[in-house]
Amino acid sequence: MLSSLVQPESGTGRLRPRRDPSAAERIARSAATTGASLRTEDFPQWFEERGRAHRFTVDRIPFQELDGWSFDPATGNLVHRSGRFFSVEGLRVTQDEGPHREWFQPIIKQPEIGILGILVKEFDGVLHFLMQAKMEPGNRNLLQLSPTVQATRSNYTKVHKGADVKYIEYFTRPGRGRVIADVLQSEHGSWFFRKSNRNMIVEAVGDVPVDDDFCWLTLGQIGELLLRDNVVNMDSRTVLACAPFPDNGADALLSDTELVSWFTAERSRHDVRVERLPLRSIPGWARGDSTIDHELGRYFRVVAVSVEAGSREVTGWTQPLFEPLGVGVTAFLTRRIGGVPHFLVHARVEGGFLDTVELGPTVQYTPDNYAHLTGEDRPPFLDLVLDARPDRIRYEALHSEEGGRFLNAESRYLVIEADEEQAPLVPPAGFQWATAAQLTSLVRHGHYVNVQARTLLACLNATAVRS
Amino acid sequence: MLSSLVQPESGTGRLRPRRDPSAAERIARSAATTGASLRTEDFPQWFEERGRAHRFTVDRIPFQELDGWSFDPATGNLVHRSGRFFSVEGLRVTQDEGPHREWFQPIIKQPEIGILGILVKEFDGVLHFLMQAKMEPGNRNLLQLSPTVQATRSNYTKVHKGADVKYIEYFTRPGRGRVIADVLQSEHGSWFFRKSNRNMIVEAVGDVPVDDDFCWLTLGQIGELLLRDNVVNMDSRTVLACAPFPDNGADALLSDTELVSWFTAERSRHDVRVERLPLRSIPGWARGDSTIDHELGRYFRVVAVSVEAGSREVTGWTQPLFEPLGVGVTAFLTRRIGGVPHFLVHARVEGGFLDTVELGPTVQYTPDNYAHLTGEDRPPFLDLVLDARPDRIRYEALHSEEGGRFLNAESRYLVIEADEEQAPLVPPAGFQWATAAQLTSLVRHGHYVNVQARTLLACLNATAVRS
Repeated sequence: MLSSLVQPESGTGRLRPRRDPSAAERIARSAATTGASLRTEDFPQWFEERGRAHRFTVDRIPFQELDGWSFDPATGNLVHRSGRFFSVEGLRVTQDEGPHREWFQPIIKQPEIGILGILVKEFDGVLHFLMQAKMEPGNRNLLQLSPTVQATRSNYTKVHKGADVKYIEYFTRPGRGRVIADVLQSEHGSWFFRKSNRNMIVEAVGDVPVDDDFCWLTLGQIGELLLRDNVVNMDSRTVLACAPFPDNGADALLSDTELVSWFTAERSRHDVRVERLPLRSIPGWARGDSTIDHELGRYFRVVAVSVEAGSREVTGWTQPLFEPLGVGVTAFLTRRIGGVPHFLVHARVEGGFLDTVELGPTVQYTPDNYAHLTGEDRPPFLDLVLDARPDRIRYEALHSEEGGRFLNAESRYLVIEADEEQAPLVPPAGFQWATAAQLTSLVRHGHYVNVQARTLLACLNATAVRS
Repeated sequence: MLSSLVQPESGTGRLRPRRDPSAAERIARSAATTGASLRTEDFPQWFEERGRAHRFTVDRIPFQELDGWSFDPATGNLVHRSGRFFSVEGLRVTQDEGPHREWFQPIIKQPEIGILGILVKEFDGVLHFLMQAKMEPGNRNLLQLSPTVQATRSNYTKVHKGADVKYIEYFTRPGRGRVIADVLQSEHGSWFFRKSNRNMIVEAVGDVPVDDDFCWLTLGQIGELLLRDNVVNMDSRTVLACAPFPDNGADALLSDTELVSWFTAERSRHDVRVERLPLRSIPGWARGDSTIDHELGRYFRVVAVSVEAGSREVTGWTQPLFEPLGVGVTAFLTRRIGGVPHFLVHARVEGGFLDTVELGPTVQYTPDNYAHLTGEDRPPFLDLVLDARPDRIRYEALHSEEGGRFLNAESRYLVIEADEEQAPLVPPAGFQWATAAQLTSLVRHGHYVNVQARTLLACLNATAVRS
């Protein structure tokens, strides 16, 4: 049962300040601190030990070897016999502009809202984040650094019939912690149908016993790890993006009201129609024994895997995964405008968004899928990013998307400096300049900033790239 | 074509302040000013003249006399031959708590996003709002005070084949005005399927010619009119609620982070499933020649009307309307906590909401629909509001809901003082205390505060009730 964390103290009738600037100051102090109980240089050794402590193998299997999963005879949807977890269904999307006006695709439907939660606590006056070394079947390197809690409702209500989710009580029961951030955010709109998760940061009250597989890190240390490939998982990145970093940039190219107005206009001007369809009825996709593929071999395929593990809530299972074809490229173009770094956001239509568009990075594409397009049909700014000179690259790392749903879904995340000729102050329709402080104020609310842009925002805020 | 209003100045690269406190100051000054070019005491005469200037009659007709509207043979949905405007379809809603776990109902599907816009301009240093005397067929008194612009996309893209929408260019073309507020807000989730409109306040650049049927009023004058029954229409009220009133209450029972966290928990804990169905297939509703009724004579009925008018975009038309049965009661309970007025908000499930729950008033019911319920099945706080002593009533007026879709949909809007015994500091699940300043900061974003609570917020902010 999800309940609010805020009730018990409110009964006194004592007022409190609506805004607590100390939260942002403490987040900033943690981001500026890179030494901690576990030194960052010792982290790889600890991490490797955690990997060795658990047997974990992932094998591709034919769909018919899935346990509990099957194709519904009427719809062809791939469903679990419990009716829970998620299902793979079909989607038709139409929109009124761009080179792709209509498409059909498989999509993951997972209506349950999960919790992605990081527990924090001050040691020596510095906030530390309780991070978990967690195996996920879709990660190429299997083990990545995840939030304290990463739980679907099925997880923590025991549909899995597995072990309790560790530390979940801090995020579901009043009195155990103090909320620092708590917001519903969307996930990949190209692969999920209207999925959102609760992104939470909670400061623990009292001592916190630290289990194996968990360690305390400062935000500065996590920032160092975000410079490395495939260490910090997607769930961590989206939660970190929601931390109340200091919102202290007083000036920007557009005022906050203008930026929100531009976003409202973008959300209003797109006429996107989305229709759920039986998976068996969507044109252009074919189901084989082990995969569901697009007829041109593009985009992604649906596969099945068998997992043997020791450290997850249950000891072994089978499940479907989406496997994108090719490595993605996800990048912000950045310019210093009036001395303040700005980032070029893109109001992106994704078929699975709850509400038409969200703000994505400047570029968010898998180049292989667009290799056949030329001229004006090429995605804007993609070639600029692909051809960027090394001295223009302010940030670069390879990160994985959610390893519990996606197999080998890697993207190269970049922040690249541009100039007026490449990225003008008055950008093309659908693009706009915003500061990191403006994006930080928008992620206090859901459905403004998509999960890829949140990864880049977390990297900007937790590393020195922002300044 | 909806385009952003913010582009042309951004090309200079000059930064501007992200937040402009002068906007809130100017809104507050307008709210404190009740004298203007048109004195409030002269308003009724002007208003009656506008009414006399236009012939306007509304007659109920059988469905078969609708022009351009018909029941789709396959689905029974009531649709327009153009495929535009709106349609009446069926809905099945299931939820996991409360006395009503499943219900079926007709619902209005209107996917187009319209513009509700008020043009403002300073005269003698005080912001004035350009309001329109507008006929709408569903209003009991036909003529009400509406925003400068109240246009569906069909309106201003000429599907009506009618006249241009006056002043629309201030809200759709760059360079004509400066944005003060611009946000997508939901409308009645019990009658509309995921409808939202763009709520805009734009300050005009340059002279504004004033057409017949329009007048400039200060916010203080509109506040005076909000104390009268059925003068200020719903579209005006929702736009006014989005004005950036001063957000200067520094303290509250819950911090802003806690309030948003509570909201996130409420949105997460409800398992609401919504399914669109053919209108002909929903149980409990029967279609006659002139009405679609619930079998128990409750809730609302679908009717058809013929309209003859002179002042609308076209001179005559027929259309369906929803006609609620009985007058609604819509009320905030209020308590002064630590010296600061707080209002008891309710995280309401409505079948047509885009995302499960929004914050509504403490009470939002049509009492007749609940007359058969007793004990714990009675809606919380309803009897407290119905039985309130006159000296506890801080605000009371009868207002109409959207007269373009609803016939005689009136609610008594109230703000009622309560004490700890009636409304405790730790309220029942689903309820929470918030200040007007907190609600004002939430309506900067969509889908937090429902349209009924926005009406009450506009009344609180534009009148002296708030303090």
